[in-house]
Amino acid sequence: MTYAAFRSIGAYIPQKIMTNADFEKIIDTSDEWIVKRTGIKERRLAEKDEASSDLGAKAAEIAIKRAGINKEEIDLIICATVTPDFLCMPSTACLIASKIGIKDIMAFDVSAACTGFVYILNIAKAFIESGLKKNILLVGAEKYSSILNYEDRTTCFIFGDGAGAAIISATNDKNEAILDVSCSSDGTYEDLIKTAGGGSKHPCSQEVLDAKMSCISMKGNETFKLAVKTLTSDVIKMMEKHNLKNSDITHFIPHQANYRIIKAVGEALNLNENQTVVTVDKYGNTSAASIPMAMNDAFEEGKIKAGDTILFDAFGGGLTWGSALFKFAPKK
Amino acid sequence: MTYAAFRSIGAYIPQKIMTNADFEKIIDTSDEWIVKRTGIKERRLAEKDEASSDLGAKAAEIAIKRAGINKEEIDLIICATVTPDFLCMPSTACLIASKIGIKDIMAFDVSAACTGFVYILNIAKAFIESGLKKNILLVGAEKYSSILNYEDRTTCFIFGDGAGAAIISATNDKNEAILDVSCSSDGTYEDLIKTAGGGSKHPCSQEVLDAKMSCISMKGNETFKLAVKTLTSDVIKMMEKHNLKNSDITHFIPHQANYRIIKAVGEALNLNENQTVVTVDKYGNTSAASIPMAMNDAFEEGKIKAGDTILFDAFGGGLTWGSALFKFAPKK
Repeated sequence: MTYAAFRSIGAYIPQKIMTNADFEKIIDTSDEWIVKRTGIKERRLAEKDEASSDLGAKAAEIAIKRAGINKEEIDLIICATVTPDFLCMPSTACLIASKIGIKDIMAFDVSAACTGFVYILNIAKAFIESGLKKNILLVGAEKYSSILNYEDRTTCFIFGDGAGAAIISATNDKNEAILDVSCSSDGTYEDLIKTAGGGSKHPCSQEVLDAKMSCISMKGNETFKLAVKTLTSDVIKMMEKHNLKNSDITHFIPHQANYRIIKAVGEALNLNENQTVVTVDKYGNTSAASIPMAMNDAFEEGKIKAGDTILFDAFGGGLTWGSALFKFAPKK
Repeated sequence: MTYAAFRSIGAYIPQKIMTNADFEKIIDTSDEWIVKRTGIKERRLAEKDEASSDLGAKAAEIAIKRAGINKEEIDLIICATVTPDFLCMPSTACLIASKIGIKDIMAFDVSAACTGFVYILNIAKAFIESGLKKNILLVGAEKYSSILNYEDRTTCFIFGDGAGAAIISATNDKNEAILDVSCSSDGTYEDLIKTAGGGSKHPCSQEVLDAKMSCISMKGNETFKLAVKTLTSDVIKMMEKHNLKNSDITHFIPHQANYRIIKAVGEALNLNENQTVVTVDKYGNTSAASIPMAMNDAFEEGKIKAGDTILFDAFGGGLTWGSALFKFAPKK
């Protein structure tokens, strides 16, 4: 039997910082209000000439190096993004491959919004366990500043730019296995989080441009309630299925959408603050990049060790949601 | 051992026809020139208020019915598209799920341009063979009329709208197995086929709109040469790997980009015209939808029977390319 092992993590954090004070200058808001509502203090912005593939390629280089493998060993690249460089050709995965010097392998993008990284982890698990692939590069890369309406005072301060990456490899050691990934969706809630314009429903036009329809819109309150409810039941189900107690989880690494969601789900699981990785204060919500960016932060702080049990959860537009349970398994 | 079986095919062909004569009225071209260059005589257009998910949902209903399964048995929906309804939230797969009355399962979009359907067939094979999923709905859905520049006389007549769908299910019968799917890419050729604007590299702006940058652009001659060379070597490799003679292939169903590419690859494989499915004359290039639409045509004409050996090939923006070899295996 072949298992999928989570070998390495990497991230690229853009240098440019946009603080809540910066938002006070452009919209009617305050640092106090944003922090109370979301826990976000600042977020990072990519440079104007950087697109998602540029961020993703930098994160990928780090994850590959830390995995201790050669680029030639990688046989699949999957990029989770809802801010692809182009609409939608070539895929961001193809561009990342080209930027890091890899070609002649399967490379594609997956669109599952903020749950993207959990979705591509599930896809990677399928490819490894079926024996079809051996070393997979996963990238979550987003440049949300490209789809933000900086006049929308309810949404624009929430999101940031960045990228994270991981290497998932085949192993025969069951102790290294990604135990479980669960992904789900409900399209009936399509209107909660949406970039309505720029696609085949409302193609790029003067009307789309004037109405800023190619920017993200979100019904924050409804999304908040559904996220807490769905994530709580999803992660409890995952833990019960594997007979895990809350003390068995070394690191709970949730999608970094909102500190209040993270706190509510963590409390429902009876996890303490040392078990929960929080980066939303520094990076805001970076969608498909948020989980690997958060995991990378904890890794670089020396908190994540081989064999640690890690629990991911995520929730996003679609709606989509999911969770993943695995032991961190760097190459021995 | 669990194998993936290709159970059913379905398609939705929009009713509205745009002929070459219609193009003669809007660009400097002629029916003779288009037919000689591409083999395309007409293509279908979706209605203005239809987006890719509307086309995909109709194709999906047919594929599900023909597979003889209940919707409740479907545990994964994958949609290949580069013309998603929205940019890029919610995914078109989530919208299709909602339209056909399915929820609470994994659903995501894959972006691999014209090779999209072969890519998602590969992903489906991985999910089934790993045992993670049992009944997967695949959809290729495109509304290219939403990204065409009707002033670009080199490209606008090539593409059409439509959708195709298939059900891939788990089986224990090795004779029903999808034998092989091979997918590859080369991002260094990113400029050959591109929708440069509307994504995170060149977000929707007045400049993007005025320059029609959110429309597809293609370097036709270079793409043509690379496609013939790459596809020929790819399918020959696939047939040699499985010790197949040309007479073993019942139906060669290539991506319908251009009749000259189809003919050149068919000749290199020594296939006769009865073995090759051609629909590019009627539908033009419908990108990720073209292979399932072509297969559906042959199926509805009564040409495809249980046990027939089918070979797919595809090539598209990215660049991406791939091929697939399987026996058509409707439920007994």
